[in-house]
Parts: sequence; structure tokens; C-alpha cells
Amino acid sequence: MPLSPYQQLEQEFRRLHAFRGAASILRWDSAVMMPRGSSDLRGEQLAALETESHSLVTSPRVSRLLDRAEANAATLEDWQVANLREMRRERDHSIATPQSLVSRLAKATSRAEIKWIEARQKSEFALFAPHLEEVTNLLRDKATLLGKALGLDPYDALMDEFSPGMRSADIDLIFTSLGHRLPGLIQEAIDVQSQQPLLEISGRFANSKQRQMAQEVMRALGFPFDRGRLDESEHPFTGGIPGDIRITTRFHPADPLSGLMGVLHESGHAMYDVGLPEAWRGQPVGRDRGMALQESQSLLLEMLICRNRPFLRYLKPLLEKTFGVSGPQWEADNLYRHLIRVRRSLIRVDADEVTYPVHIVLRYELEREILSGELKVKDLQEAWNARMHDRLGVRPANDAEGCLQDVHWAVGSFGYFPSYAIGAVIAGQLYESLRSERPDLDEEIAAGKFAGLFEWLRQNVHGLGASLSTPELIARATGRPLSAAPWLRYVEGKYLEA
Amino acid sequence: MPLSPYQQLEQEFRRLHAFRGAASILRWDSAVMMPRGSSDLRGEQLAALETESHSLVTSPRVSRLLDRAEANAATLEDWQVANLREMRRERDHSIATPQSLVSRLAKATSRAEIKWIEARQKSEFALFAPHLEEVTNLLRDKATLLGKALGLDPYDALMDEFSPGMRSADIDLIFTSLGHRLPGLIQEAIDVQSQQPLLEISGRFANSKQRQMAQEVMRALGFPFDRGRLDESEHPFTGGIPGDIRITTRFHPADPLSGLMGVLHESGHAMYDVGLPEAWRGQPVGRDRGMALQESQSLLLEMLICRNRPFLRYLKPLLEKTFGVSGPQWEADNLYRHLIRVRRSLIRVDADEVTYPVHIVLRYELEREILSGELKVKDLQEAWNARMHDRLGVRPANDAEGCLQDVHWAVGSFGYFPSYAIGAVIAGQLYESLRSERPDLDEEIAAGKFAGLFEWLRQNVHGLGASLSTPELIARATGRPLSAAPWLRYVEGKYLEA
Repeated sequence: MPLSPYQQLEQEFRRLHAFRGAASILRWDSAVMMPRGSSDLRGEQLAALETESHSLVTSPRVSRLLDRAEANAATLEDWQVANLREMRRERDHSIATPQSLVSRLAKATSRAEIKWIEARQKSEFALFAPHLEEVTNLLRDKATLLGKALGLDPYDALMDEFSPGMRSADIDLIFTSLGHRLPGLIQEAIDVQSQQPLLEISGRFANSKQRQMAQEVMRALGFPFDRGRLDESEHPFTGGIPGDIRITTRFHPADPLSGLMGVLHESGHAMYDVGLPEAWRGQPVGRDRGMALQESQSLLLEMLICRNRPFLRYLKPLLEKTFGVSGPQWEADNLYRHLIRVRRSLIRVDADEVTYPVHIVLRYELEREILSGELKVKDLQEAWNARMHDRLGVRPANDAEGCLQDVHWAVGSFGYFPSYAIGAVIAGQLYESLRSERPDLDEEIAAGKFAGLFEWLRQNVHGLGASLSTPELIARATGRPLSAAPWLRYVEGKYLEA
Repeated sequence: MPLSPYQQLEQEFRRLHAFRGAASILRWDSAVMMPRGSSDLRGEQLAALETESHSLVTSPRVSRLLDRAEANAATLEDWQVANLREMRRERDHSIATPQSLVSRLAKATSRAEIKWIEARQKSEFALFAPHLEEVTNLLRDKATLLGKALGLDPYDALMDEFSPGMRSADIDLIFTSLGHRLPGLIQEAIDVQSQQPLLEISGRFANSKQRQMAQEVMRALGFPFDRGRLDESEHPFTGGIPGDIRITTRFHPADPLSGLMGVLHESGHAMYDVGLPEAWRGQPVGRDRGMALQESQSLLLEMLICRNRPFLRYLKPLLEKTFGVSGPQWEADNLYRHLIRVRRSLIRVDADEVTYPVHIVLRYELEREILSGELKVKDLQEAWNARMHDRLGVRPANDAEGCLQDVHWAVGSFGYFPSYAIGAVIAGQLYESLRSERPDLDEEIAAGKFAGLFEWLRQNVHGLGASLSTPELIARATGRPLSAAPWLRYVEGKYLEA
């Protein structure tokens, strides 16, 4: 029997999945393994793969098959209808950007990422600026074309690729809502914390031991080491593909916790990928539901679950075993105060969760202005430093702790940053439901048992893949539409506790 | 001005080069980095890439462009004519094997390689046998089709993919010539060496220090670490692509030399890739001239240059510095005796150069018989052990030191093994010319200066890419057609020295 149009589409998208998976592993290799001088060649490989993927999705054959499959959608199962909708979405996005532009962007971002690593090491924005300029020029072309095709503002068109359906207007509302409360909350939290004793943690903590402890925690979480790795890179990230997940972190020899927190953040992403429905693997509907939900998972695990007392009761004996430490500074309460310390600080990935949204709003504004041309790339460093001082009262002493700290712009991910803050808001809302449905959660975590947590997440988030829209998924999981209120309640409870 | 047919072909083959480069890095990742459980997904990625490469080379468009470019060959430069010839060769080879078979082979070998690693660790051929059977069945189909298309015996057709123009008839002649002299020579060498004092080398030599020393030697050779890496894997190999070269070795904690010799062997391959003409990169004519020449380069460096007295004068202070060793057992003469020790032994990659061809002849016979169906895969273990005993007087105690020791069959590389022995013969002939043209070679090597060696090789071998056939290249470099005589002279001089 000949394959139906829908079945032929499944075949085509499985091939697409293989190309993208190959590219994803090669990008991981670029950041973690590749010799510095080979970036040009890698750029050609990634460009060839992206060109091929692009021409697959935009082929007349796929468009024809989509039309025919949609005409017969009544014969399909629900998940197949959702799959078809995601295929269509992908095709409409891709066809708006011509192949030559896709290929130039791939080469430019590959070069820019390598230069970013070098510029960051030397803390010299000028080294990176011409590459960022090349990337943003190409991205502006893409955003304009994409916006026209989808009927969206250029920035919203880019954002829609990361978090389907998210719009600046929604973001602005949520940021306004947070903005009403956060400046006061930050100061109140700092005041409360200034009254609490905090014992210094010091010493040298070998990378190899930090790594070993991180792996032990990952095993407890259920991270499948036969289908994933932990490595080190300049900027922590989750790469690879579901079924071959590569997470990275950075260990700091004087701080045994920051590298671990990076691991936990990335493990939140990883466990989302682990929990995606295996039966849909290789199909668009089998993917995660975009970056805002991805970030909700990493922040839920790192911030809400692990920077919390029950987790620290589990971690304390691990720290003692791994580093042979003891004393009052290693008590769970003192560790907790360290891990939730609110600071007006410079580095986003090290920021506490209360000031974190401020870092995001800064980037959100800057990237919109750069994209619109309102802000020139050459003026970015100055704008960054000035606004950082204005919003948080701190000023970067150098570019490495300023506008060079994140990889996102180098790789062309404009429109990605807001998902971090929306992710936090989603995490707050999920956490409230999770706790009310699993009253024993704290005891489980304190005992190093994470199965219950991930079972709930699998049922309510991970296992749904991309079958629902972000708002539908949140409403299904929590019984309510998305709002910032649960996250604000959680933050107030945690940070204003006397 | 529109691109000429030849220029369009260059574009197509540059894209092919990018796909193949991506696949090569992914294969390196499979062997060195990938979590064990992810092999199925990797298999799908490699299959998608190979299918794409195959359909590119065999496309009607490429065939049409080849016809048109060949009709206008008079307008091309010499290297372009050679490039066109290599393009044609590639197309004729590829079009003989249908895409479905290419894809099935890619998946089967990816699975088989992972199983081989496991089977080898457990020393259990039965675990690997069904996978090898699947691979050989598919290869037999391929060999038959390819042989028919090229007018060759099936085995010769496979061999022609690795070493263009090499035929069993030539191999048989050279093996006969070696066979006349080797059995006697092996015994004579063993007798001579039994009269010489040999002081034991013992101790524990940390992997990290061995690695550090190996990297120092690689730097002296001129290996470009900004465009390459050294790692560890089950079976040493050279992967990646020119411009991003990945070599691997295995270090043994009780032996500071065997891991280094692996590094030197692979560095011989790597330096060939490093010396390929940059102007032709990405084009078929810019590749190396097949496996026999590749092996000539690895054996020349490891066996003829480095397992020799001048190199050991350079190495001795490095060993002392790295491991803090001293004493008579660390004198260059004693190290030399260790490194050229002739033994009737089991492991090919650890074999001395005199018994080495015996290991090759064994594999050459077995793979021909398996391919023809004369020998069943299930009987391989027994046949291997019996013949090893018959030829060298030793019998494997387990499969890891028997028929599971090499990765080649797992990845479908039937027809590859003979290139090792032909490579040795080529190395012998190149070495004779090299020495007569560079009378100061020994002094240079002893001083750790390898630039002269690689300059000669670049002029006579590396820099020619695939612009000449193997026999043409050898005749150009040495002024004579290929013969086993120089290698035999070299071996007699080295091993029968009182």
C-alpha cells in the first residue's frame, strides 16, 4: 500500500530531525571540543546542513503533501493533527527566509561564536563587535521578511521562532507587572538578609571532585548517563538531542556550589528532553514546547527546587563526603542563605532569582533597539554599562562581566532572552500546583528522591511535547491562565521571611 | 557570467565535502565522546548524511555536468583535469550502489561498531557476530554490484574504494615476494635479538603525563593543535578532516612507549592531511591518495623514523623530564631494543614491523573468504585462532586479543587491510630515496627537528593530493616503480645487525 501524504510527511520530517540532530551535536562539538582554528570549516558544515534542512522544509513536495494531508485531516489521530499543525508552522516560518540568507547567517554566527569566546577571554568587546554587527545585519533582514510573512512586528517574528505565540505586548504586560513590585522587593530582601548571619565558605574545591559530585546529583535526578554527558564549556548550555543530551557547566575552584547550580539549571532542560514522548520522537509534535517552557523547567529545578532547604538537607552530606568539609558554615541553613543571597550583581547566570528579571529586561530592551537600528552595535558596550548602573546600581569593570557575558547574540538568538523571565513566571505557577498536588514533595527532595517531581512534570509538561500551545499547556497543568501572581507570592514568601 | 559546468561541479563537490566532514566528526564523536545508548540516533544521522551525499554524487545533474565539463576539458588547467577525473571516479563508484543499500549499511555499521566495543570489552565474539553477519551480508551485495559496474572481482571492487587501482593480483605478487623471505627473516631476527641484552622497563606512568609527553612530541612534529586534537579511544584512529584533525590513542599505565607509538602512527596520517594542498581543499583532487599511501605515511613515521636510534636520542631526555626516570634501562640503545623487538605476538597494532605483514595476510585471506561466503561469520573465531597459531605459532587466549581486536570489519572496511602491508612496502621505498636526498636526516631527527622530513614528504607525497595515481606518485617520488626490495633491504639491515 502506498504511503499516505501524512505518512510521507512523517518520513520527510524524520530526515529533517536527523540533519538537525547532526547539526546540534556539531554545535556542541564547536563549543566543547573543536580546535579553535577549525571554525571556518565547521561553519561550512553547519551551513550545508542548515541549507539542506531549509530546502527540505520549503520544498514544493512538502508544501503539496501538507495541503493534501490537511484536506484529509479527519482520518488522523489527535496527535497526528497536532503534528501536522507543527509541520505547517515550521514550513510557513522557513519559507519566509530565503536559503542564501539562512546559509550566510549560519556562517556568520559560527565565526561570531568563536570570536565571542576569544573576546570574552580578553574582555575586549571591540574584537567581537564587527562580528556581532554582521550577525545583526543579517538577522534584521530575516526579521523583516519573517514579520511580513507572518504579519508580525520584526522582533515578534524572531521571538515566535523560540517561543511560539509569545508577543512583545504580552511580555511588556508581564514585565510591567513585575516592575511594579520588584524594585521594592529587591531592597526589602536585601534589608531582611542583612540582618541574618552569613558564615563565609572558603577553600579550594578541585574541578574533578565538583564534577564527581555533580554527576552523583544528576544520577539522583534520573539523568540517563547512557544517553547523555556532562562537560565543561565557557558558557553552560544544554546541547545534543533527546536521546543524546549534552549538558555543560563551568566549575569555579573557590566555589563548590556555582558549578553545581549550573548543572542543575541545565539538568532542568535535560530532564524536559528526557521526558518528551518517545513515541513521537523525530516528529515536530515530539519536540519541547519552545524556550519559555524550557526555561520554566531549568528555573523550576535550579531556583525553586534546589535553591531551597529540602534540597540542601540532601546536599549537605554529599558536600561533606566529597570535599571532607564540616563546621557551621556547611549547615543547610547557612548554605541556603548563600544560595538565595540577593545582590545587585553583574552576571546573569550567577544572579539570584529576584534580581534576575532585571538582567532580562535590560537585554530585552537592548536587543529590540539593536534590531530596530535605534541602537548601534558600536554603542552597545556603553549602553549596557549605563543601564546596568541605572537599573541595579552596579557598573561592569570590563566587558567580560558586561556585554560579553552571554553567547546568545553571537549565535543570533535575538528574541530568546524574554523566555527566561516568562519561564520564571511559568515555573512559579507550576510550582504552586505541584506543591498542592504533592504534599510530600519537600520530604521526597530532602531524601534525594526526585521521581515524584519528574513524574508530575512528565504528566503535566514533558510528556505533552508540542501537542498544545504554551497557554493551553499551562492552563491544563495548573487549571488557570498564566499570571505573575504565583511567582510573586513564592518570591515574597521566600525572600521576606524574617 | 554564468558558472561553467566545471565550476558548478566544484560547487557541488564542496557541498559534498561539507556533508562528509560533518559525518567524519560525528564518527569521531561516536568513538570518543558519545554516550553508549545513543548509537541508534547517531546511526540515523549518519545514514541521512550518507544518503544525502550519495544522492548528490549520483544526481542526474552531476552526471550531466560531468559530461559537459569533460567535453570542454581542453580549457581546464592540469589540476582541474585531475579533479574532473576524480569526480568521475567518485560518481561511477557511487552510482553502482543504490541509495537504500547505502543507508542500510550506514545504520548496520553504526550499530555494529557500538556492539564491537562492548564485545571487545567482554571479550565475547558471540555478542558481535550477528552484527558482523548483517554488515557482511550488505557488503556482499554492494561488492557484487560494484564489481559488475567496474568490471572487477567483488573484493577488488571494495579495495578500489580504499586504494584506487590496487588489485588482488598485485597484492598476491607482493605478498608472495614477502612470503619468500619473511618466515626465515623472523626466525633470524629473533635469534639475533636473543643474543642481545635487554633490561626491563617497569613502573607506573600516569596517563596524564604520557599524554603531555605525546603532545610535546606532536608539537615538535609540527602537528597544528589549533586545528587538531589528541584524545583516547578503544582503538587508535585518525578522524575528522584536514583542518580539524582528530587523532586518538590508547595509553597503558605500565608502558610509557606503546601509547606514544600509537600517537606517532596516527601523527603520520595526520601530517599527510596537514600537508595536503590547501588550494584544492574541498575538492576530490585535494584529498589524500588512498589508504595504501596513508599507511605508508603512518608506518614511515612510526616504524622507520621513530622506532630508530636518532629519534630515541631525542626522546630520552623527554622521558627523563616527564617521568623522572634514569638508569641503564632508559639508555637509547636499550629503548631501541625494546621498540624493535620481534615477537610472535597476537595484537596487530602492537606488532613489530617484521611480523606485521603476517597479521595482514591473515586478515586479507579471512576477509576474502568471508566475502565470498567460503567462510561463515560464525566460524571466524575458530579460523582466526587456528591460522594465527599456524602462521605465527601463537594462539589467542580470548577474542579481545583475537578476532575482536580491530574495528575495521565492524565499520564495513573490507579491502582495507592489505593497504597496511603495501603501505609498509611504499614506506621502505620512500625512506631509501629520502635518506639519499637528505644525508643529514638522522642528525635532524636526533635534534628533534622534523621540518626537513616533512618538507620532503610535502614535496613528494602530501602536496600532490590525489592528482596522480598511486604508481605515478611513487615513481615520481623515488624514480622507480614500486617494489618490495627496498623495504626488505631496510628490514634486513635493521634486524639482522649483530
